[in-house]
Amino acid sequence: MARIPLMPVTDSMFLIGESREHPMHVGGLQLYTLPDDAGPDYLSRIYHTLVADEQSVQPLFRRRPRRPVSSLGQWSWTTDHQLDMEYHVRLSALPRPGRVRELLELTSRLHGSLLDRHRPLWEFHLIEGLEGNRFATYSKVHHALMDGVSSLILANRALSADPSTMDMPPVWAVPPMDRPSTSDGSGPLAVLESLRSTAADLAGVLPAVVKNANIALREQASVLPFQAPRSIFNVQITGARRFAAQAWSVDRIKSIRRATGATLNDVVLAMCSGALRRYLLDLGALPDRPLIAMVPVSLRAKQKNTEASGNSVGAILVNLGTDLEDPAERFTQIQSSAQVAKRSLAELSPLQILALSGMTMAPLAFAPIPGFVKLTPPPFNLIISNVPGVPKPLYWNGARLQGMYPLSIPYDGQALNITITSYADNLQFGLTGCRRNVPHLQRLLVHLEESLSELEKATL
Amino acid sequence: MARIPLMPVTDSMFLIGESREHPMHVGGLQLYTLPDDAGPDYLSRIYHTLVADEQSVQPLFRRRPRRPVSSLGQWSWTTDHQLDMEYHVRLSALPRPGRVRELLELTSRLHGSLLDRHRPLWEFHLIEGLEGNRFATYSKVHHALMDGVSSLILANRALSADPSTMDMPPVWAVPPMDRPSTSDGSGPLAVLESLRSTAADLAGVLPAVVKNANIALREQASVLPFQAPRSIFNVQITGARRFAAQAWSVDRIKSIRRATGATLNDVVLAMCSGALRRYLLDLGALPDRPLIAMVPVSLRAKQKNTEASGNSVGAILVNLGTDLEDPAERFTQIQSSAQVAKRSLAELSPLQILALSGMTMAPLAFAPIPGFVKLTPPPFNLIISNVPGVPKPLYWNGARLQGMYPLSIPYDGQALNITITSYADNLQFGLTGCRRNVPHLQRLLVHLEESLSELEKATL
Repeated sequence: MARIPLMPVTDSMFLIGESREHPMHVGGLQLYTLPDDAGPDYLSRIYHTLVADEQSVQPLFRRRPRRPVSSLGQWSWTTDHQLDMEYHVRLSALPRPGRVRELLELTSRLHGSLLDRHRPLWEFHLIEGLEGNRFATYSKVHHALMDGVSSLILANRALSADPSTMDMPPVWAVPPMDRPSTSDGSGPLAVLESLRSTAADLAGVLPAVVKNANIALREQASVLPFQAPRSIFNVQITGARRFAAQAWSVDRIKSIRRATGATLNDVVLAMCSGALRRYLLDLGALPDRPLIAMVPVSLRAKQKNTEASGNSVGAILVNLGTDLEDPAERFTQIQSSAQVAKRSLAELSPLQILALSGMTMAPLAFAPIPGFVKLTPPPFNLIISNVPGVPKPLYWNGARLQGMYPLSIPYDGQALNITITSYADNLQFGLTGCRRNVPHLQRLLVHLEESLSELEKATL
Repeated sequence: MARIPLMPVTDSMFLIGESREHPMHVGGLQLYTLPDDAGPDYLSRIYHTLVADEQSVQPLFRRRPRRPVSSLGQWSWTTDHQLDMEYHVRLSALPRPGRVRELLELTSRLHGSLLDRHRPLWEFHLIEGLEGNRFATYSKVHHALMDGVSSLILANRALSADPSTMDMPPVWAVPPMDRPSTSDGSGPLAVLESLRSTAADLAGVLPAVVKNANIALREQASVLPFQAPRSIFNVQITGARRFAAQAWSVDRIKSIRRATGATLNDVVLAMCSGALRRYLLDLGALPDRPLIAMVPVSLRAKQKNTEASGNSVGAILVNLGTDLEDPAERFTQIQSSAQVAKRSLAELSPLQILALSGMTMAPLAFAPIPGFVKLTPPPFNLIISNVPGVPKPLYWNGARLQGMYPLSIPYDGQALNITITSYADNLQFGLTGCRRNVPHLQRLLVHLEESLSELEKATL
């Protein structure tokens, strides 16, 4: 009898760490404009085409986990020979009036339920009934199969810049790339690729590196003039999710950047900070001390000064200044805090930077590790990731992509996650929270707009 | 510090026995005719009314399970003081064309996902977009909170025989009854009540009685001239579900009953038998030996001869004659098998009858018990329950109830469950199966109709 190859620990750790309170899948919500000639059965026809084409499913999307008796409880991958396309691909509808509100409600529910481990670990939902001549898709992939950045790359690769391209394959039918990156290494996809390969490299060493990462973060924190307070976000979480999403014009953010000399990320952080302050004030839950965000940053510039090679992403801790009422003061605080943090990051060893990158790209890796969750006080209050996207409009079989919002994975001690990605002329915010511990999450969208207006008034 | 009262083992066993492959909730699907004056926002208005009225929620529907540290891992009930009505009550829609097919697809998905244990263990879905001027509701209650029969009683009590009654409370706002039964003890609700109290009584002794029940069933089996074969239904199951449902006129079934002198249950079993034979033949999976069904039966008549009191329900094993091609021969086989089984049941001790009732009313009680699932060969191939319903039309705030279909709980070794309930002029079949092991479950509906026609030809 042939020995069954075990699953790499970098895959299985996400299965082992999963529970009904901690589904370990990432998601993506995409909104499309219906093509002009779309009839009422447009989406239903796409659905039937997708379901009928089982042959095109790539091997990655045919894998399912199993625990053979002979492996003594360890996981391995196997191929599902009874692929049930109607299980994986689903047609859903929104109740009237079919606003974005109803879409987010449905997406929240879909994101909160576990994938069936007896099947390949993905679902794809076509959603009709969205007002404004639109439809949406929601996709769900287990982290054991693919991390969030990889799934974003794949989603982009499944689309075309040409609206006249038809007969395009769905995400699960996109053949794997021959090389890590086919671009010149500098475009947005190249950055994504580099993020992905960083995560993949790290995943290999993560279990060993976890302690180091933790120490590295604490070292970074120790040289910074602040410490994360306890907050409602840093508690044990429940299984249900709430997702909120909205896009803002990148031009508005760029105007503030130009006026202040800050980075785009600084402006985004200031926008989040003002919104979080208002949200927590409403709930009577604003800590006296400022919230601390863990923020992934590009290390391209810094790397010239270190021996690290290949890895272009690190993480910094940023003081969000949520204790300050004045938006301009808050902005200055964030800017200077980010600068200090980046300096201290440059002084970390390559291994520590690597470890930090791991925490950023695969924060979940830590949830299964006993003790990590109960760290007191929390090393940071929430993760705010800004993942580079694609600057030009994309199409799927003639339907224009309006927006693409990432759904992340809250975990114990991190009940809220903010992930931002760019597309065309917009910055798209995806907020994923534990439904119980982050109440009225959608209010954060209103507060984000208020916060941006406030910044405009204070800086322009 | 006050001691925390533990949950009765009869509740907690359903939490302990639950896994992602074995969600332990029952469900109910109800179809309604929209009132004549219903506008496009009819359901949305109901939804907002329900969500706004948190005060009316009865204590039972406010309970959530928890495991206090001081209880050493044992479960207790606590009151949820953050009741999130928008979590429990949900508005959904069907994709076009909104046929019953789309409704069953959605219901299958909803029935396959786990309830959040951090909240009261129930969900209620209002479903719009059903063709033919209709809407539907799907409700989901954990077996730890309420068994299937109790939830059916409650669903009936929430409705009115008067179409002009308005401002009716939803199920979770129906106050508990002062007495076990308010009727004269002979109507359908009285029978339901008696089933419910049987289940409740039994639940108290189940863990101790399980072995006896098993022995009793085996004794019953040993005096019968057959043994259940292995079949595709008697395997380990997966987490996803498929639900199929359809109603048949009770007059068609009564005609056969009159022509043959059989019981109504015999006709229903013959209908199922013919359908199962066709279904398994299609799949090339028909066992040589006949399938054996476990069937709950009323023991009212039998009880006069025993010392048992109060309990009016037992279970018999019936040879379904699925090896016989001729529908008339099959029918005769089922009739005589049911008669023999009822005779042998009468010879069982009151405790054994009690135990059998327990298996019928709470089959899940057995899933958590090690060894039960792996019994070889299976004592029976599937459970076919015929639960008495209500003979007259019912209304909910003026909307006429068209049909009410029970969703049951498949478990390891029992991948398919057939539950039938009567309402107005119909018998309503609800088939709940493991999506992987009972493929194309909806074909059974077609086969049920074929089987009924076949019986009509053979007997009328």
